[in-house]
Amino acid sequence: MATLVLLRHGESEWNVKGLFTGWVDVNLSAAGEEEAARGGRLLLEAGVRPDVVHTSLLTRAIRTANLALEAADLLWLPVERSWRLNERHYGALQGKDKAQTRAEFGDEQFMLWRRSYDTPPPPIADDDEFSQFADVRYAGLPKELRPKTECLKDVVDRMLPYWYDSIVPQLAAGKTVLVVAHGNSLRALVKHLDGISDADIAGLNIPTGIPLRYELDADYKPVSSGYLDPEAAAAAIEAVANQGK
Amino acid sequence: MATLVLLRHGESEWNVKGLFTGWVDVNLSAAGEEEAARGGRLLLEAGVRPDVVHTSLLTRAIRTANLALEAADLLWLPVERSWRLNERHYGALQGKDKAQTRAEFGDEQFMLWRRSYDTPPPPIADDDEFSQFADVRYAGLPKELRPKTECLKDVVDRMLPYWYDSIVPQLAAGKTVLVVAHGNSLRALVKHLDGISDADIAGLNIPTGIPLRYELDADYKPVSSGYLDPEAAAAAIEAVANQGK
Repeated sequence: MATLVLLRHGESEWNVKGLFTGWVDVNLSAAGEEEAARGGRLLLEAGVRPDVVHTSLLTRAIRTANLALEAADLLWLPVERSWRLNERHYGALQGKDKAQTRAEFGDEQFMLWRRSYDTPPPPIADDDEFSQFADVRYAGLPKELRPKTECLKDVVDRMLPYWYDSIVPQLAAGKTVLVVAHGNSLRALVKHLDGISDADIAGLNIPTGIPLRYELDADYKPVSSGYLDPEAAAAAIEAVANQGK
Repeated sequence: MATLVLLRHGESEWNVKGLFTGWVDVNLSAAGEEEAARGGRLLLEAGVRPDVVHTSLLTRAIRTANLALEAADLLWLPVERSWRLNERHYGALQGKDKAQTRAEFGDEQFMLWRRSYDTPPPPIADDDEFSQFADVRYAGLPKELRPKTECLKDVVDRMLPYWYDSIVPQLAAGKTVLVVAHGNSLRALVKHLDGISDADIAGLNIPTGIPLRYELDADYKPVSSGYLDPEAAAAAIEAVANQGK
């Protein structure tokens, strides 16, 4: 039996502004910082002590991990980072206002871009101010690995190698693993773990700042799962579902 | 030619109180947090971009690294941690007031414990409130590796394997390496790099929060070295030398 804990980063500055973020490296808001620390306290109170932590390469996930670990007195844990845990790349929508985009393109197109499994937004131009074309943190990645847009299926495809190669071996060694990442990279992982269909994943929202614990069997399939604060999770899931309305 | 950057953590809560700290896991003071961020800005202004970061297992070094990297927009860097970079274990002096200790044991004994190369303080008892005997972060270390006191020679001996096995291979691969650690673990490394004698190392103080850059040759010996803010470093070195007076 292995324990996996997922934690979505706290509210970011662009969550507040209602902008599509994707790979744009925005910071946490003050509320997001508090959410992150609270996530750490929830770990502590539940007696869940990770042995190792994984984050994306984005500041909002890394700071969420740092603040949560500090609150849990676990800053000393080993940490690994990967672009494969990054948020879904939102293509040409990055930096755009969600409500304006909805008004401009209509409800149907908006929901297709936000929630369809395999329809990515238009690709972002390399010279777009919100492109990561020149971002030094991805300089080591061959061009063909660096997305210009992604649908959730693309995220599943690029996330799973990290799950199999970096996380599963640690679970196999008996470690409790904490993954601090993003709405869509965690939805991709939950889709895989829970065997959610391409259609049904559209309805799944993961709340920010509330650790989601999985107990996994020898095949790394869930025996049980649940948020460490179920009431807060239910309320937050409702709020995420209303984004952009 | 390889670049190595050393950064001593900012002022801690126990620096302020004038207590021997060692392996006790105290946090940064507010001034220490600001020092850490300033260290990051100095890296940014000097155009020094590390490829990888190493820290001890102690919160004050880890938070210094996190705050410096955040200020330099480098939170995404890979990071490795090791007890081998920890501060010198101060034995039974941990938690004791420096000025009181000096008054109680006299100048000569005080300076011997603080600055002699090979005289450790008395060992700490396992049940001392400031012992790390039960600290979960060291649970994976065999008992014989876990110090109950250390002199600087002991720190050199346990730090060097990490230098050779974890840092040198990264320098050999052309990476710029940042090490965020402590007064004595960094003195141990500087002693090795600069070939300082057992006698002369007593006079070497490393200021907090100011990156110290080394350019190393093919044998990992210094070609040049210097603080990124030499004036502030000189002033701080003077202040450290006066501690406990």
